[in-house]
Order: sequence, then C-alpha cells, then structure tokens
Amino acid sequence: MSQIKTLKLYAHPAAPHPWKIILILTELELPFEVAYKTTAAVTKEQIRAMNPNERVPILEDPNTGLTLWETGAIAEYIIETYDQEAKLSFKTAAQKWETRMWVFFNVTTQDQYYGQKAYFTLFHENKDIPTVLQHYTDEVKRVLGVLELHLSRTGQAYLVGDRVTYADLMFAPFHNVLCSVILYPDFEAEWRADFPHCYEWHQRLMQRPKVRDVFKRRAEAERVMHEENGRTIR
Amino acid sequence: MSQIKTLKLYAHPAAPHPWKIILILTELELPFEVAYKTTAAVTKEQIRAMNPNERVPILEDPNTGLTLWETGAIAEYIIETYDQEAKLSFKTAAQKWETRMWVFFNVTTQDQYYGQKAYFTLFHENKDIPTVLQHYTDEVKRVLGVLELHLSRTGQAYLVGDRVTYADLMFAPFHNVLCSVILYPDFEAEWRADFPHCYEWHQRLMQRPKVRDVFKRRAEAERVMHEENGRTIR
Repeated sequence: MSQIKTLKLYAHPAAPHPWKIILILTELELPFEVAYKTTAAVTKEQIRAMNPNERVPILEDPNTGLTLWETGAIAEYIIETYDQEAKLSFKTAAQKWETRMWVFFNVTTQDQYYGQKAYFTLFHENKDIPTVLQHYTDEVKRVLGVLELHLSRTGQAYLVGDRVTYADLMFAPFHNVLCSVILYPDFEAEWRADFPHCYEWHQRLMQRPKVRDVFKRRAEAERVMHEENGRTIR
Repeated sequence: MSQIKTLKLYAHPAAPHPWKIILILTELELPFEVAYKTTAAVTKEQIRAMNPNERVPILEDPNTGLTLWETGAIAEYIIETYDQEAKLSFKTAAQKWETRMWVFFNVTTQDQYYGQKAYFTLFHENKDIPTVLQHYTDEVKRVLGVLELHLSRTGQAYLVGDRVTYADLMFAPFHNVLCSVILYPDFEAEWRADFPHCYEWHQRLMQRPKVRDVFKRRAEAERVMHEENGRTIR
C-alpha cells in the first residue's frame, strides 16, 4: 500500500459525481489528492485537454500513467487496479456482474433523473414548467422504487449480497441531498414511509465513519468555494 | 464458436438501447434470439422479475447461467466473455480503458440528452415548453461537439485507434435517428457542416454490411410492431 504513488483527482465541491470517487478512494485507503476545478490552479483548458467532455471527475494515476474520465469508468478502474483484496467488490462472476449492473444503473439512471431534477429546479432559465418538474419528481421516485423493490425482495442489507460494495457507495452523494436539492425537506418522512428498505440502506451507508468523513470534507469544500469566489456548480 | 448456446435478448423494436447490443452480438457473429417486450409472449411480470428497473435490453446467457440488464453492463459482459480475439476491443490497458470511458459516455451522456430530447418532443403531455426543448437541442449539439473535438484532434477514424470497437457501435442507433426523432430533417446538412469528423465517422459505421443488416432488421421489427398492436415505445 505504501508504495502506491499519490493519485490526483480533479473534482468540484458541489457536483455529486466526484464525491462517488472520493468515497471509493477513501474506503480503500488509497493515497490521493484533490484539485477542485473551481480554483484558479485548474483551468478550463487543462480540463478540456484531459477530457473532451470537460466534466469532472478526472483521475490521473502516476502508477500506470493513465488519465481517466467518466465516473463509472474511474470507479471500475480503481476497483480492478487497487481492490485485489475485494474489500469493496466480489471476485465471483455472478456477484461481479451484478455489482457492475448497479454501477451502470447508478450513472445512467440515478444521475440522469436526479441531475435533471436539480438542473430544472436550480438553474434552468424558466422555472414555470410544472409538468417538467413533475416528470422528474416522478422519475426520482421511480428510481427509489427500483431500489426499494430490489432491497425488499432480496432481503439484503446491500445491493449485492450482505456487504457493502463500491456500487452502494456511488448512490450516497445524490441521496445525501435528496431531501433538499433534489426533492423537498418534508420528503424525509415520505422516503422512510414509502421506501423503507431504501431509506434504511442509505442510513447504513451514512453511518460508516469514512463516509461521514467524506461528507464533512465535502461540506467544508463547498464552504470554501462559496467564500472564495461564489462560483456555482459547473 | 459452434459450441456456444444461443443467447436470448429481450428488446424493444423502437428503443435504441437494445439495438446497441444487437449490433455487438451481430458483429461478433454470436448465436442469439430476440424476444420483443411488445409481444404477448413477454409479460411485464417476466421483465420485472429479471430487472427491477423493468427496462430492456436484458440478456439471458445459458452458457454461464447469468441474466444481465443495463445496456453498458451487457456490452461489457459480451466483450469480456466472448471477444477473446479482440475483434471489437483492445487488450492493452490504455486502449481498453479508453474504450470503456467512451462506453460510459455513451450510456450516461448520449442516452440522457438524446433520450430526454426524444421524450419531450414525442411523449411529454405538454409540448409548449420551448426553453426545455431548446435545452435538450443544445445538449445534443454539445454531445456532437465532444465527439467532433475528440475525432478531429486525434485524427482517428474511430473513437479508439484506427479500428472499430463496441464503443463506436453503441453510438449508431441514436445517430441513425438524429435527423428525424431527435433533431430535425434539415439537421443532416448542419451535422455535416458543423461536425464533419463526427458525421463521417457515423457514415463509416453505417457502411458496415452487418450494421446495415441490423438496421434493416430494426425497421422490419418496428413495422411488425405497428401492424400487430400499434403499441408505442415503453
């Protein structure tokens, strides 16, 4: 472990996606440093040179010389390269593929609907679009329903079997703002009542000491960002 | 090759995602059969039992006993399991991970924006939402710009190096309806003028005999679906 050179992650304090990677790096106790794209030390040209999509997270790994972008690809790369002990993953084919299915569901479906709900609520030029906001509220609840169905019919504590994987961790950053940025403060009671297995599963993840540390770090990074330059997401 | 038992793919004639998988299966010359969820032979309960998200594609592989859902996971599974000769993929780490980054970009970014543009254009209850439609038009063009930037600055014929991979193929089904369902018929001239490398790349994919066969099969499946029951997407 001590021979691994420090990985560099480009991130954004307010975007949930980089925090999925920070959760995985932290749980695996890998050495890494974070460069926030909201600071003067990181230019738009740098980001664009590494990733034509100009988004973070981006991971630079001096151990292999590779630069990776796309949250899902970075997550899979870290697991395949550094989780040989299977602390956050499984070695058997059935469980390995099940984990990867949930990773894809996370980045395609949770990200899409939670992300677009946040976009139309916070940033879109026209806020008078009730059917559009309702569409995304419905889709967010549909995603919660998918997680609830899976957790309730399997009776598992986590998405794949009875121990945490990187797939579980990837759902936490968006769920951590579900009752504020994505839906509404009162939703916590509704979440607990209508999607109880999903609610308990999220609480279980949030009780992990390293997960708590990461979210403290995120809150602090957001505070510094607002203090320093008042820039908003992206 | 002849010892491989026939794979079963659950699909939808009008949804682009299953056709990404059909392109990969066809190019790899794997034995497979298709069950369309629009037919009476496939019930909603069957789909839900296999995939809590209730979407297709879903792949059943009698060779391994595994059932997979999520387009990206199915694509990766087929490649890892059946493309040992690397006909549609690479073995070296740098190129393997680059391909996987484009697969994630495909299912997170192309699918999200092209899919939501199609949804709000064709299916949303309120069509009088010009800023929303404009948002998705802008995002679709932004995605084309990302592909254009990558293909123009690398000078490559395909996304990764100079031969086709499964990542390239996965972009074809949505681009095949770009100038009708996603944007507008006149867009073909604009695409060619503003995103020339991207346009040529798509034409290159469409000239492959197996790709042409798959899109003929898709047109026929859509025709049969409309004739038989007039059901629309999902």
